[in-house]
Amino acid sequence: MNEIYLGGSFIEMGESLDVNNPFNGAFIDRCGKAGQKEIDKAIVLAQQAGAELMKLASVQRYEILHGISNGLLNERKRLAELLAGECAKPLRYAMGEIDRAADTFQVAAEESKRLPREYIALDWTAAGKGKEGWVRYFPAGIVVAITPFNFPLNLVAHKVAPAIAAGCPIILKPASAAPLCSLELAKIIDQTALPKGAFSVLPCDRHVGDFLIADSRVAVLSFTGSPEVGWAMKERAGKKKVVLELGGNAGVLIAGDADLDHAVNRCLMGGFAYSGQVCIHVQRIFVVNGLFEAFCERFLSRVKALKYGDPLDENTEISCMIDEKNAVRVETWVERAITGGARLLQGGRRDGTYYPPTVLTGTNRTMEVNGEEVFGPVVVVEKVDSISEGIRHLNDTRFGLQAGLFTFDMRSIRKAFEEVEVGGLIINDVPTFRVDHMPYGGIKDSGFGREGVKYAIRDYMEAKILVL
Amino acid sequence: MNEIYLGGSFIEMGESLDVNNPFNGAFIDRCGKAGQKEIDKAIVLAQQAGAELMKLASVQRYEILHGISNGLLNERKRLAELLAGECAKPLRYAMGEIDRAADTFQVAAEESKRLPREYIALDWTAAGKGKEGWVRYFPAGIVVAITPFNFPLNLVAHKVAPAIAAGCPIILKPASAAPLCSLELAKIIDQTALPKGAFSVLPCDRHVGDFLIADSRVAVLSFTGSPEVGWAMKERAGKKKVVLELGGNAGVLIAGDADLDHAVNRCLMGGFAYSGQVCIHVQRIFVVNGLFEAFCERFLSRVKALKYGDPLDENTEISCMIDEKNAVRVETWVERAITGGARLLQGGRRDGTYYPPTVLTGTNRTMEVNGEEVFGPVVVVEKVDSISEGIRHLNDTRFGLQAGLFTFDMRSIRKAFEEVEVGGLIINDVPTFRVDHMPYGGIKDSGFGREGVKYAIRDYMEAKILVL
Amino acid sequence: MNEIYLGGSFIEMGESLDVNNPFNGAFIDRCGKAGQKEIDKAIVLAQQAGAELMKLASVQRYEILHGISNGLLNERKRLAELLAGECAKPLRYAMGEIDRAADTFQVAAEESKRLPREYIALDWTAAGKGKEGWVRYFPAGIVVAITPFNFPLNLVAHKVAPAIAAGCPIILKPASAAPLCSLELAKIIDQTALPKGAFSVLPCDRHVGDFLIADSRVAVLSFTGSPEVGWAMKERAGKKKVVLELGGNAGVLIAGDADLDHAVNRCLMGGFAYSGQVCIHVQRIFVVNGLFEAFCERFLSRVKALKYGDPLDENTEISCMIDEKNAVRVETWVERAITGGARLLQGGRRDGTYYPPTVLTGTNRTMEVNGEEVFGPVVVVEKVDSISEGIRHLNDTRFGLQAGLFTFDMRSIRKAFEEVEVGGLIINDVPTFRVDHMPYGGIKDSGFGREGVKYAIRDYMEAKILVL
Amino acid sequence: MNEIYLGGSFIEMGESLDVNNPFNGAFIDRCGKAGQKEIDKAIVLAQQAGAELMKLASVQRYEILHGISNGLLNERKRLAELLAGECAKPLRYAMGEIDRAADTFQVAAEESKRLPREYIALDWTAAGKGKEGWVRYFPAGIVVAITPFNFPLNLVAHKVAPAIAAGCPIILKPASAAPLCSLELAKIIDQTALPKGAFSVLPCDRHVGDFLIADSRVAVLSFTGSPEVGWAMKERAGKKKVVLELGGNAGVLIAGDADLDHAVNRCLMGGFAYSGQVCIHVQRIFVVNGLFEAFCERFLSRVKALKYGDPLDENTEISCMIDEKNAVRVETWVERAITGGARLLQGGRRDGTYYPPTVLTGTNRTMEVNGEEVFGPVVVVEKVDSISEGIRHLNDTRFGLQAGLFTFDMRSIRKAFEEVEVGGLIINDVPTFRVDHMPYGGIKDSGFGREGVKYAIRDYMEAKILVL
Repeated sequence: MNEIYLGGSFIEMGESLDVNNPFNGAFIDRCGKAGQKEIDKAIVLAQQAGAELMKLASVQRYEILHGISNGLLNERKRLAELLAGECAKPLRYAMGEIDRAADTFQVAAEESKRLPREYIALDWTAAGKGKEGWVRYFPAGIVVAITPFNFPLNLVAHKVAPAIAAGCPIILKPASAAPLCSLELAKIIDQTALPKGAFSVLPCDRHVGDFLIADSRVAVLSFTGSPEVGWAMKERAGKKKVVLELGGNAGVLIAGDADLDHAVNRCLMGGFAYSGQVCIHVQRIFVVNGLFEAFCERFLSRVKALKYGDPLDENTEISCMIDEKNAVRVETWVERAITGGARLLQGGRRDGTYYPPTVLTGTNRTMEVNGEEVFGPVVVVEKVDSISEGIRHLNDTRFGLQAGLFTFDMRSIRKAFEEVEVGGLIINDVPTFRVDHMPYGGIKDSGFGREGVKYAIRDYMEAKILVL
Repeated sequence: MNEIYLGGSFIEMGESLDVNNPFNGAFIDRCGKAGQKEIDKAIVLAQQAGAELMKLASVQRYEILHGISNGLLNERKRLAELLAGECAKPLRYAMGEIDRAADTFQVAAEESKRLPREYIALDWTAAGKGKEGWVRYFPAGIVVAITPFNFPLNLVAHKVAPAIAAGCPIILKPASAAPLCSLELAKIIDQTALPKGAFSVLPCDRHVGDFLIADSRVAVLSFTGSPEVGWAMKERAGKKKVVLELGGNAGVLIAGDADLDHAVNRCLMGGFAYSGQVCIHVQRIFVVNGLFEAFCERFLSRVKALKYGDPLDENTEISCMIDEKNAVRVETWVERAITGGARLLQGGRRDGTYYPPTVLTGTNRTMEVNGEEVFGPVVVVEKVDSISEGIRHLNDTRFGLQAGLFTFDMRSIRKAFEEVEVGGLIINDVPTFRVDHMPYGGIKDSGFGREGVKYAIRDYMEAKILVL
Repeated sequence: MNEIYLGGSFIEMGESLDVNNPFNGAFIDRCGKAGQKEIDKAIVLAQQAGAELMKLASVQRYEILHGISNGLLNERKRLAELLAGECAKPLRYAMGEIDRAADTFQVAAEESKRLPREYIALDWTAAGKGKEGWVRYFPAGIVVAITPFNFPLNLVAHKVAPAIAAGCPIILKPASAAPLCSLELAKIIDQTALPKGAFSVLPCDRHVGDFLIADSRVAVLSFTGSPEVGWAMKERAGKKKVVLELGGNAGVLIAGDADLDHAVNRCLMGGFAYSGQVCIHVQRIFVVNGLFEAFCERFLSRVKALKYGDPLDENTEISCMIDEKNAVRVETWVERAITGGARLLQGGRRDGTYYPPTVLTGTNRTMEVNGEEVFGPVVVVEKVDSISEGIRHLNDTRFGLQAGLFTFDMRSIRKAFEEVEVGGLIINDVPTFRVDHMPYGGIKDSGFGREGVKYAIRDYMEAKILVL
Repeated sequence: MNEIYLGGSFIEMGESLDVNNPFNGAFIDRCGKAGQKEIDKAIVLAQQAGAELMKLASVQRYEILHGISNGLLNERKRLAELLAGECAKPLRYAMGEIDRAADTFQVAAEESKRLPREYIALDWTAAGKGKEGWVRYFPAGIVVAITPFNFPLNLVAHKVAPAIAAGCPIILKPASAAPLCSLELAKIIDQTALPKGAFSVLPCDRHVGDFLIADSRVAVLSFTGSPEVGWAMKERAGKKKVVLELGGNAGVLIAGDADLDHAVNRCLMGGFAYSGQVCIHVQRIFVVNGLFEAFCERFLSRVKALKYGDPLDENTEISCMIDEKNAVRVETWVERAITGGARLLQGGRRDGTYYPPTVLTGTNRTMEVNGEEVFGPVVVVEKVDSISEGIRHLNDTRFGLQAGLFTFDMRSIRKAFEEVEVGGLIINDVPTFRVDHMPYGGIKDSGFGREGVKYAIRDYMEAKILVL
């Protein structure tokens, strides 16, 4: 079924996209590929739906979003298996993603009743005597969402759910590697009372997607993906508002007073869950002096024990990467680091699309495994002398998404909160921590703007003041 | 000059109140004593001023309040000396109080432009489709303020400033022991554009003051003073809103990881500034095991060194109490504690109105020095085994105003925040800490409601929703 | 089954309360009557549950409250019939009440994740340099709820739902005339994960209920009912926080530019729905000059057509009153008004518990039908010369709950918003309008505090600041 | 004195810029012209000052900003005359601008104590149990401000004041036509405790200014000026946040029930104050049918009476334009409109830099006087049949800054609030209305982001969440 979801209709395309399981190459399903004509049509339909969408009462938006949330939970098992298959994500994590996406839609349902509104006195000076102001936030217009393969449902939800809450039509270009979950979402949304035209899913090639970026009828461009692609988009976005959720080389700092077992546990998850193909994957671990040896020992023994296998097997902890190209890239980066003087503590031998959990030490920021976004199952562990030195290392990068700090000392926590250059600092947990209603996004090269439903909603809206 | 300030006029009374310096008995000045007739007149004038007051634009409220703030600073020195004299407060603290009162009025000036207002969607259910709500807070009506001697300017400011910001007329009954600062404040306010009638200062006997409490034309009763008096007022307050800022036996807990010198410094200030005649005076110090001896040694040596003298001498650190009756009461309580088994570590010998800085240990909650509000220069120091035990001790009282905790450990801080039964928990400082815009007030027997300008304003206003 | 719900258990009582259908006297069911012993036990169990309740994560509170909401909807039909029977409320309104109660719980579910929290800078003066403040609101303690017969489910929901959201245990004394819905609610709540002890339903006599009012272990008293009973409670409430939702004689003003048909429609509903046994029942209608005759004509013809009958009949628009005592009271008030000079335009002849829809004119505030809360199917219609005169009439009463204004003129709307002394002013609708998340409550003799889930939650909590 | 203000020092430049009075060509003063070297130096100094700036306590930021506000008021007369001279703004408006700039700094002083901070529960799902979040907003980095000639002080204040409040260093490129006020501001700021380096004023040519736009060390670009320049900047801004306050062709709609005299008064001010060289100048007036003739008659008689003269004369109501180039441009546009079929009702004959108050009718959106930003003393007046048609006309443009609506009918007001595509809708006043703390900014081609101190502050900051 070469389908796309074009403004309320599932339609057949001439061209199609095959989706195979990266773990075993098995064919899963195919979908259609949109062309420029479909893009144009989606925009026209979105414009038409916009007026209708803006008129929906809160109770209607709530029912639509709540209905989507329930729709996802009703098909939890089936969707998780589809998701696990199309992106080789171990089933346990795939199940978690369905739940989180359902949460994201439910949070948006609730926030749709609580859109920002202000009522302000204007008589602060004589010029405003007798006047008051009411500020409502109106939908900014059409949102274009471009999403990556690694969370093919929840990162889509983080754009679609706030757009509906805000009253914006939304056109989605899903990742070509993993478009099927988006089309499943379209089926669920199609069953709700969302005005037809307000949502489209258009799998397409990048050059076709570029029409979405350039089109002046689009008001907001929300992109999650790689820094290079994202920043380039910003320059071509014209008058659009732009939100970029990019990646980084997230670091964690383990202080001398840390709970070591807890830190090891969390770093294992943060470093290797979904083979590190996560924007806030733990890539750099800095351990304060005294704890370094103990940390490495325990961490490495746990890394070795990670269970590799079929993503659809419930016991699998780590599976293959999304494709061989990326596995090769990671392999190259690790080899270059070793050539450059880094020491391999664990892992490091690629097998097709599989790259094993790998730990290095003795790296520096000029090596890609340290300074670039590795987006694979590679972690560097380095010793530092103090919290201050650790913070310097955390900051010694062009990225700034999230960071972790394991300590109980309030002075270190406050110092780090002031000094670590990130969008989120997680105490006693890894940077990989995220709950879906918190403000989330990076500074420096890691992003532009914040998501987290309520925060995304704000970016999709425009303030209008009524002065009376 | 037997004057009172009655709704915009300074008028002579037949009966007068002499104010003497508690330190040397010297006559300072006298003021008039209001009777029931004046109370009635003040209420009538306040009612009339109310309508005018409600119509003031933000810019006018701001100018009035900002003008009062400036007026206080312009006379800082003179007012501080008057204040120091009338309540025997060492000049350094009296100067600080003028500054804080000026801040309190400035904060109120700023908040008067930011009164709470809400603009809400009402279409959460079908019944509200097409409707929106605007919530404005309107002045509740006449506020009656009854204030104590110990901060005869800033505790007055904490009621007068928010009342003006909220648009409420206010009638003040100042402490009989220290009414002069209130009348000076009236002179400053009288120079502003505050509508006449909106402010009265009525020094009077308690039985006359009772008419204010009972009068049904009064909307809000805001009292700062002793728990017994306060709670009794609440029962006689009829339909009024009531705010009670009462006292307590504030405790501080010093953990094993505390910065000892810092803790000693702050406990010295918290324990003996203005002879402990402060609602959030440090009365109970709990020190975790290992630090107990060291703390006592350093603390006692510092207590011994406190410089006693004339409040008007800039070098004086501690002076006499407000009157002999209270000094005798404290003496009796200390003696009873010693009889009951407490050990006197320092101080304990009264000389007229002077009671010296006193430290006891081995007390328990059945002794007044521990379980009641001592409101004098007496501190008990006790050893505890753990943070948990310390928290139990902090809570083992019918009071709950503020508490202090000296530690850097985030686990202890969070535990204490959850468990200590107070309105404010101060980390690495004494419970005596207060800045004038923070929410301030107690739970249990220590109070009802919160002050802190913005918080007080809310209690002086009533929400009204416009549904459209 | 002589049951009450005592802190998590349904237990048999010796004494019982029979509940009969006021329309035909048919026995519906009976429940137990609690005594002083049960009250004490409920308080002890509530105290124990308090600690557990305070520790619940948001997700747990949400699940409990959302579960109750669903539970009500799942039994919508059965509950509506029970409710219609026990208080003779026409089924159409009874169905609406179940839906609203479900909404109230759902709103509370959502608000339980959004409890007030503040993070404030404290360095506004030098004294606060380097310090910050975090304000969390903690549950105040045990809430006692006393509720009336007229909305035996939703007015209960307005106390129980915010209490659970806030983390407060709650003890409910339902109306003796209509306790069965509360016990049904208890069955639903009992199926959730709410800690046992956190909720009790104690039908009892007023003198037994008085123990709840007096008990010092109770932190909050929330009462909905008659003004006399409410204000008397406040005086006996000791140190408790008190919320009073009392009644009034709500007025509506119809301006010369009003949409007459719409106004007639809404006044019909506001005046006679549930026989006017509603706190915000339209009791006084003021019509500006030119429209008076036309309004009366259309209104009276609609009043005449109201369909009387069995509350369980879906076609019934108006049924009997709650009991004969009240019907007789209304009869007496109408007769006295007529004796005093009022003119009867419609209705006025009682038949047992039934009192017909009645319209009077020529009344004044000294007549009970105008100046007191009639709480029955009686409306007075009076002519006024202008908006200003109409506002004077609206305000010419000791009550101030809600008012309505039919006009499209922004000047009149703003004037009325400033001047009408009420908690809520409803434009182009009757004062009877309420959606469950809006701030709701009266001023003057009509109440103390606000409900509306979020607003009620605030009254059930105490601010605690952490200064760091 | 060929000076610029470079990061805390007034330094002499080789190249200079002469500033002459546009009214009579008289030389006023000269200032220096910065080159690329100075730009680089200013950025380096700003970076250094950034760390210091971020550490300032609220009380320090307040004192700096409050000090600037006072500094402006202290030199009110002198500054107004300088301003009037350098941009030919009639003195009455120049005085008003000094006052407004002082207000803008005072508002920023107050807001610097109230920077956004959030404290949120994170336990909405099981994954966040036991965790809480604190969101602080940190300064984003260096702000570059580029400002126009027409409000050479207050539009500068709208960028400098929020930058200081937010803790961002700021580099200002003032309009070449009117740089002197900025340098006066620098003198005032130089006297405060603002860390040296945190503020620079760099008059320069546009190609030099381009280095500021391109530099990657700059975090925020805030531009006020023409749409063409602004939108082009956005495309070259790289990773910066961009705020654009551009212009428009603001419209006003006069309904049939409008207060005609009031509307005429306000349209006169909005249309011709400062020769219409105002972003929210009234350019298009739409009058509903019945009022059209009456409006035109009264309006034209008032326009004729406007007093032309020397900007420094207190009686002058209208003076010349900023330069002859612009006067010629306006002349051409008016001529083209007439050629295209428009009818000249008043004005239209240029004299050097003076262009007289001009009124046209019979225009359409293809004429520049209607469809482009005229930025001169030209107003078009058109008749419409209804509110709906009027709204269509208001929206029939690529701009959307502010609009005015004269009516008292709530239905029209709400309809317009929903439908008029602008950032601000002013009821019973012209779009020219602005008080400095209200959210201000346009949609469509009129801008990107909002100013208004608090709103600008938000754009100069980045959220950082601490998860604990």
